[in-house]
Amino acid sequence: MSILAVGSIAFDSIATPSGRVENVLGGSGTYFSLAASYFTDVRVVAVVGEDFSPEHESVFSRRGVDIRGIEHAPGKTFRWGGQYLENLNEAKTDFTELNVFERFQPRIPAAYMDSQFLFLGNIHPSLQKTVRSKMMDVRLTGGDTMNFWIKDFRPELLETLKLINILLINDGEAKMLAGERSLPRAARKVLALGPQALVIKHGEYGATIFFRDGAFGVGKHPFRAPALPIEEVKDPTGAGDSFAGGFMGYIASQESLNREVLKRALFYGGVMGSFAVERFGTERLQSLTREEIEGRFQIFRELTHLE
Amino acid sequence: MSILAVGSIAFDSIATPSGRVENVLGGSGTYFSLAASYFTDVRVVAVVGEDFSPEHESVFSRRGVDIRGIEHAPGKTFRWGGQYLENLNEAKTDFTELNVFERFQPRIPAAYMDSQFLFLGNIHPSLQKTVRSKMMDVRLTGGDTMNFWIKDFRPELLETLKLINILLINDGEAKMLAGERSLPRAARKVLALGPQALVIKHGEYGATIFFRDGAFGVGKHPFRAPALPIEEVKDPTGAGDSFAGGFMGYIASQESLNREVLKRALFYGGVMGSFAVERFGTERLQSLTREEIEGRFQIFRELTHLE
Repeated sequence: MSILAVGSIAFDSIATPSGRVENVLGGSGTYFSLAASYFTDVRVVAVVGEDFSPEHESVFSRRGVDIRGIEHAPGKTFRWGGQYLENLNEAKTDFTELNVFERFQPRIPAAYMDSQFLFLGNIHPSLQKTVRSKMMDVRLTGGDTMNFWIKDFRPELLETLKLINILLINDGEAKMLAGERSLPRAARKVLALGPQALVIKHGEYGATIFFRDGAFGVGKHPFRAPALPIEEVKDPTGAGDSFAGGFMGYIASQESLNREVLKRALFYGGVMGSFAVERFGTERLQSLTREEIEGRFQIFRELTHLE
Repeated sequence: MSILAVGSIAFDSIATPSGRVENVLGGSGTYFSLAASYFTDVRVVAVVGEDFSPEHESVFSRRGVDIRGIEHAPGKTFRWGGQYLENLNEAKTDFTELNVFERFQPRIPAAYMDSQFLFLGNIHPSLQKTVRSKMMDVRLTGGDTMNFWIKDFRPELLETLKLINILLINDGEAKMLAGERSLPRAARKVLALGPQALVIKHGEYGATIFFRDGAFGVGKHPFRAPALPIEEVKDPTGAGDSFAGGFMGYIASQESLNREVLKRALFYGGVMGSFAVERFGTERLQSLTREEIEGRFQIFRELTHLE
């Protein structure tokens, strides 16, 4: 089934201990779409500037991503520059030029209106809410957010959280959103704000999904998926968005929607995140095969499963 | 089969967000022995002072731990005081009074000489080496160490590492020992120093075991066990030693010694660590049942295993 992704398309300049690149295609919508495209039909809503070329466009179209929702606006595409130093889990931002993204008002093509799955990338919570309210056929909505919205747009974010079925955030964001230092307690508080499930991404330690009581079937416990212990992480940019793409893409590819599907989706999220960081930018996500993905899924199993 | 544990016995004064206690029985040898006692016969070598009472002794003997190796020396028992503030993963030490532990020279009773498993707790690496060299029947040696020895006693530690089959340390210690920020690369470097397997403990994110090529059978990948997402960690003191006790105790209880046994042992390590932190000091480890342990093992499975 089709998934609609709303997010950013950006040109990133990145420095890591493994090297540096300038103005490579990135952004949450890009990483998400490419990762999800290995599982299901993906439609993307985003905005780009005049510097977005047919070659950039072909990165999406070669993966079968429907790009009719990419709006071309006068001006330059969103640009971000950052570096990863001591800690590969955390980027130091050098610059952020919002450019056309500053006035982004998601416009949803008529052809997208029948989407059954929706992913609201990390944009203003009021825009997330507007998009969600327009999509009448959506069965499941995933969403992301970040410290900036949690801190300065809390009322708007709380409204949006009521409409999100599965929230995907990292440890620091979960603790900040809940005002709580214990991760399991933070999870319980976040689930009380609306979502039926909460995915907390722990970087190199994997991710945990917490369920609200009775949501997606029965079960008493959260579920934890590992990350791959990768000797050389070339570029962590987009790992979280690729995780979300694998997670949501797998869910959208399944007939039923239950805890077992969500658990497997958590593994596929880890799988796609692990591929993303092997090369700079989206390079690795552009040329995967389903066999490589299934092979890595098996490695994730071996990493965690007893006989 | 019997396991001999060499370590510290201490009286701890601990403050956490859940409360505070003074002079409760603790120390690496204590937590390790109690945790391991649920799986196998445990013998302990340690030193205590005149303030170590029959009631303290009975904590060990009630669990069937052989205490003939506890030396009673003139003076006071090792005392440690610390607090856990923002971050429950890290203690701030208020005071350390080594007392009788300062001149600790492990003496191994003749009745212990047939021990087939050995755990060298976090003591001076030269003492660890001396103990190991005396034990002729040992099939497998586990060991622990810490930043102090890694930094200031590196040559002695490197000698000892050649005699340790499985080293159990945390993320920070592994990175420091290897001089390497990437955990998988650090693991490879540590394994080149001697151990056939390396267990890296990640606190609330669980633990990973890395194998040297060909050690303990075939297999290409490390293995990761979760930690239990516990809403209220009362007191993290001794979690790592309890983990080691569950891990080594389970191994010593098994006939064969292969990767599958070590993987299960990693789960049992997590199980015992999760019990330890539920109450202050060793309280929870004193009164467990094997049924409770197996029940939690099942929860650890549910936390990680797909259908």
